[in-house]
Amino acid sequence: MSDDRLYHVDGELVPASEATVSVDDRGFQYGDGVFETMRAYGGEVFEFDAHLDRLADSSETCSLDHGLAREDLRERVHETLAANDLADAYVKLSVTRGSQPGTVTPQPDVDPTVVVYAKSLPRGGREGEDVWDEPATLETVKTRKPATNAVPSDAKTHNYLNSVLARAELFDADEALLRGPDDAVAEGAASNVFFVGPNGLHTPSLDGPVLPGITRRVVLELAQGLDVPVYSGSYSVQAVREAEEVFLTNTTWEVRPVATVDGIDVGGGPVTELLRKRFDRLVEERHYGGADHDADAGDDQPDAGDPDL
Amino acid sequence: MSDDRLYHVDGELVPASEATVSVDDRGFQYGDGVFETMRAYGGEVFEFDAHLDRLADSSETCSLDHGLAREDLRERVHETLAANDLADAYVKLSVTRGSQPGTVTPQPDVDPTVVVYAKSLPRGGREGEDVWDEPATLETVKTRKPATNAVPSDAKTHNYLNSVLARAELFDADEALLRGPDDAVAEGAASNVFFVGPNGLHTPSLDGPVLPGITRRVVLELAQGLDVPVYSGSYSVQAVREAEEVFLTNTTWEVRPVATVDGIDVGGGPVTELLRKRFDRLVEERHYGGADHDADAGDDQPDAGDPDL
Repeated sequence: MSDDRLYHVDGELVPASEATVSVDDRGFQYGDGVFETMRAYGGEVFEFDAHLDRLADSSETCSLDHGLAREDLRERVHETLAANDLADAYVKLSVTRGSQPGTVTPQPDVDPTVVVYAKSLPRGGREGEDVWDEPATLETVKTRKPATNAVPSDAKTHNYLNSVLARAELFDADEALLRGPDDAVAEGAASNVFFVGPNGLHTPSLDGPVLPGITRRVVLELAQGLDVPVYSGSYSVQAVREAEEVFLTNTTWEVRPVATVDGIDVGGGPVTELLRKRFDRLVEERHYGGADHDADAGDDQPDAGDPDL
Repeated sequence: MSDDRLYHVDGELVPASEATVSVDDRGFQYGDGVFETMRAYGGEVFEFDAHLDRLADSSETCSLDHGLAREDLRERVHETLAANDLADAYVKLSVTRGSQPGTVTPQPDVDPTVVVYAKSLPRGGREGEDVWDEPATLETVKTRKPATNAVPSDAKTHNYLNSVLARAELFDADEALLRGPDDAVAEGAASNVFFVGPNGLHTPSLDGPVLPGITRRVVLELAQGLDVPVYSGSYSVQAVREAEEVFLTNTTWEVRPVATVDGIDVGGGPVTELLRKRFDRLVEERHYGGADHDADAGDDQPDAGDPDL
């Protein structure tokens, strides 16, 4: 990380190398905070409202009444992007319960700690360079997702050890495939999982311990708009291994094809490519003021012979 | 908290008000660190070796190879106590994975962050003032302990949100009673649970999602030394509510009687009092060079008529 970047810490823009929080901060002591990872394209955050909504949901789930107005948070993100002269960027916004002396029990009177991180992240798309070098390799791990009544799966919090442990298990893969308590596939360590089966596009249901990913939701909407049959349900690891195509979604990866699952080749395919194109077009239309891919419209339908659609 | 206390941060003693970590620290970002809460009596940490052992176990469970020698950690704690002129104290030692740019995946090359917190905590015992004002009230909460294959229950980590959420649920009680995924009683939000039933002393087994508490182990040893029948197993909330006596253990509370469970009076009793006395004597013998309670030896047996022993 370069030292001249500026972070936004509790209302002040400070050099990254000097950006600190108290060791008494509950974010440090207990992981007692919520966050969002976002991506700015052309100076504006993609699905900003959805991220602010989810941050509010995570805060409510954690009984974290931080008292910060939505527009205040939005403004801090904009200030951070502007101060770093960033248009295409990775942005992370964290809000913790701050310091509360002496007890695990959260106190209602909160002086929150607010941190905005930003760094350059050039847009990939079909013409740029993707964040990832190549399709992901996926490996099923022993670490399970906690049940949502133990660690709420709908909240994005600084309690991220489950994902750290899952990634630590990987032998030779990019992403971990985690199952829930009932053995069904839940999600990746930092991504949602999709696969294409005989009947259409499948992804684990939010009834399981699955983060309601924003890219996940956008991709589901895109698929529905393309009349791709979409199913969310409970799936075995075997179903993912035997899929025609597998891909992962998250804010930074967008739609990332999966090459192998537990060493078994699955590769990309027409549905994955179609959704990647459509996602890229959505970003183009919303953030760069155009739909410069009209010439490719003919590519946007899957091959006629594709049995999956 | 007083501003003139000194914390020990990465090898330096700094005023508590200036003790900070980078916002890039994985302890802050992911709760990716381990800790021990300890108590010093008469200048020496109670069960220091056991705490250092457990810190090593927690680190191993988290694949956190911090590279710090045991004696180095011990020395930092001693330095912190000495710098604050503390003999009877609360001490917390945290070791995190430090800063590792750019990815959730833990990297093997660790520059750990080490923080030692200390504050005065006068010894309670039978003659001093206890840390707690009165017996605890205990309330069963909806938040469950995660399964140990999701969040390892034998590791004490900065992922403490589960306990925070459990405490946040409390309506009018001091401590939360958490069940595991199988409905059996696991532990308190920050304590182990014991109860006295018709046959002797009971505590949830470490086969469940239960922290191997150091005070828990010491109390079990004391009970065995007193020929109190001891059982660890799987228990329902109802068994705790119907118990003759209930108490909680942790490093700061030592042995704390429970007055009520879900509003049902259980109160203390002879076994709890006996174990409190024996615990206090152990501290006296080990840390203050004497056994000044010999005159009370006659009190150390439960009442002859007590059906519980």
